[in-house]
Amino acid sequence: MSGGGLTSKKEMGSVIEAIKWVNGRLEILDQTRLPFQFTNLVCQTPEEVREAIRKLRVRGAPLIGIVGAYGVVLGIQNSESSNYIEFKNELDTVINLLKDSRPTAQNLFWALNRMQRCCERNRNKEISVLKELLKKEAVKIHQDDKKRCLRIGENGAQLIREGDTILTHCNAGALATGGIGTALGVIYTANREGKGIKVFVDETRPLLQGARLTAWELKHAGIPVTLICDNMVGWVMKKGLIDCCIVGADRIASNGDTANKIGTYNISVLACHHKIPFYIAAPISTFDLNLKDGSEIPIEERGEEEVINWHGKRIAPKDIDVYTPAFDVTPGEYITAIITEHGIIYPPYKENLKVIANKIGENSQINIDK
Amino acid sequence: MSGGGLTSKKEMGSVIEAIKWVNGRLEILDQTRLPFQFTNLVCQTPEEVREAIRKLRVRGAPLIGIVGAYGVVLGIQNSESSNYIEFKNELDTVINLLKDSRPTAQNLFWALNRMQRCCERNRNKEISVLKELLKKEAVKIHQDDKKRCLRIGENGAQLIREGDTILTHCNAGALATGGIGTALGVIYTANREGKGIKVFVDETRPLLQGARLTAWELKHAGIPVTLICDNMVGWVMKKGLIDCCIVGADRIASNGDTANKIGTYNISVLACHHKIPFYIAAPISTFDLNLKDGSEIPIEERGEEEVINWHGKRIAPKDIDVYTPAFDVTPGEYITAIITEHGIIYPPYKENLKVIANKIGENSQINIDK
Repeated sequence: MSGGGLTSKKEMGSVIEAIKWVNGRLEILDQTRLPFQFTNLVCQTPEEVREAIRKLRVRGAPLIGIVGAYGVVLGIQNSESSNYIEFKNELDTVINLLKDSRPTAQNLFWALNRMQRCCERNRNKEISVLKELLKKEAVKIHQDDKKRCLRIGENGAQLIREGDTILTHCNAGALATGGIGTALGVIYTANREGKGIKVFVDETRPLLQGARLTAWELKHAGIPVTLICDNMVGWVMKKGLIDCCIVGADRIASNGDTANKIGTYNISVLACHHKIPFYIAAPISTFDLNLKDGSEIPIEERGEEEVINWHGKRIAPKDIDVYTPAFDVTPGEYITAIITEHGIIYPPYKENLKVIANKIGENSQINIDK
Repeated sequence: MSGGGLTSKKEMGSVIEAIKWVNGRLEILDQTRLPFQFTNLVCQTPEEVREAIRKLRVRGAPLIGIVGAYGVVLGIQNSESSNYIEFKNELDTVINLLKDSRPTAQNLFWALNRMQRCCERNRNKEISVLKELLKKEAVKIHQDDKKRCLRIGENGAQLIREGDTILTHCNAGALATGGIGTALGVIYTANREGKGIKVFVDETRPLLQGARLTAWELKHAGIPVTLICDNMVGWVMKKGLIDCCIVGADRIASNGDTANKIGTYNISVLACHHKIPFYIAAPISTFDLNLKDGSEIPIEERGEEEVINWHGKRIAPKDIDVYTPAFDVTPGEYITAIITEHGIIYPPYKENLKVIANKIGENSQINIDK
């Protein structure tokens, strides 16, 4: 770990970069301490990357994918294997280790899969060349995500009207991706287009990504933001304060069912009830079209201390049961549209996601057995 | 303020007493510090009572009513007025001061109204007798609330089936009333009847009355309780973990629209969506039948520091806007039934609340112009 000014050096206009690949090391802005402390972690091994993901020092589905890819590079760049079989074994061990970071976000598995395919595709190359190609693949995953965010932003901004007030949840911004974000990418783009938007963000218990990360990102970008508690969402909708909702995603099944940060399902039901459009913004790397529906998405449950300890202080009596799902699944039928880098996808998702998958036509871009 | 063992001395079986009237002084268990510190406040003036209510050291609609009545006694017990007019002026000044504590809970205005009527009814008595009668009226309001809670508990328990898992919100328990509570009164009674119930409680941001108070009360009473974050409510409903919801109320309008702790509206919409019964439990003192509907209920907004400061630590960046309604209004049509000490009231509330008001037939018992 090193202290220092990752963010102060890395602001792209008004948007923050959450990670940096420098001289064969991965620098991560520790998000557990934001927005009060800016601390960089330097990861030099896949184990350190896995630990940073598990502890949510780095988070956000697309960003976990990118970091996973760099984790593979960290794991093999000093390999002394002299032949492909040996090298591939080493790579697979690293990938299995990284797969075991967090279970829900599809982007991690998508990125690790891409790294694996890159290796297999180049099995006839020399090990030194293979290492270089794998590093390039990780950098490409990172760079592509920047572009994908921009395209998601442009596509999604078409759905935003002049003067809209948008509700978002958790953080699907620059801190969750390699670029300007997915849900926040749409918000940044609509703002840049001069639409005069406002944002409500809920605090997103237990880890307060809404209060700590999104409120900070938007404030930093000069976009008017109002913080509410998670339990105020229905009330602000009832009062007519919300024009639409946009959130990110951790995994999207073939019928449009979407896993995202716990609390998303609440918002989707409340949005339906109040007839407010509810949008998901996510890159294609979030889709897992091998899953029939959301019931097949593994939902991580985290330690109870994330709920009952707050800055080291308990907020509940001892020895009570705590239920702590980190994600929930929003049924596709509650989702007005899914905003991707390849365009806006509307229901019926079962059919329309297949169309997109066929259009993209690359196994490397979308998780679907063909 | 004095330290000491109010609760340790005051446990009625497994239920806690939140206040005590002793030797012309009001002792209040400071609820802002629960469940980690047990501190008694002693209030000797109406100003101290108002401050304790405003700071939420004492809270819960029925309890605020009781404390308000004692506040009146504190304000006039040392009066040196020699005639009724002078005394009544003094009383009205005290009542106006106490009315200015918090705006939403009807029970405060109901109790202060009862104290005023008690004075007016006895205008021909000597001042010393009048003082004694007012003290008795306050004690009666307190004692009556104990009985009302028991009756609410018995009435409501009829709605609870063997093995039900009940969701509650905020705290409508012994800490919110003069007895065993309203929503928790139903839960305690069903538990005593051996129904083998379980409870889920949401933490109830921003002030965590669910996590701090309800989880503690239920744990203390030996009832299985699971804590969740507010944004997990929909998800536990979707997973089929909840059989019914019971919450308290701060004010109920003539059409059944009910103001209660912020987050109640969210839960009511989610319960409707999942076809889960949603019950309000409240004494008649909570009804304000002069109000046509919930839009006329004044909703308190509290300081933003309650959201953004947590045990003295900020949880959000500086200078962002925060919206902090302390209550919301659940439309009568989302409420399956209202459990009162006079029985269970079903829709249509507009008609059925009138029937109850006529049955009770006392202006002193229900706020309705006849």
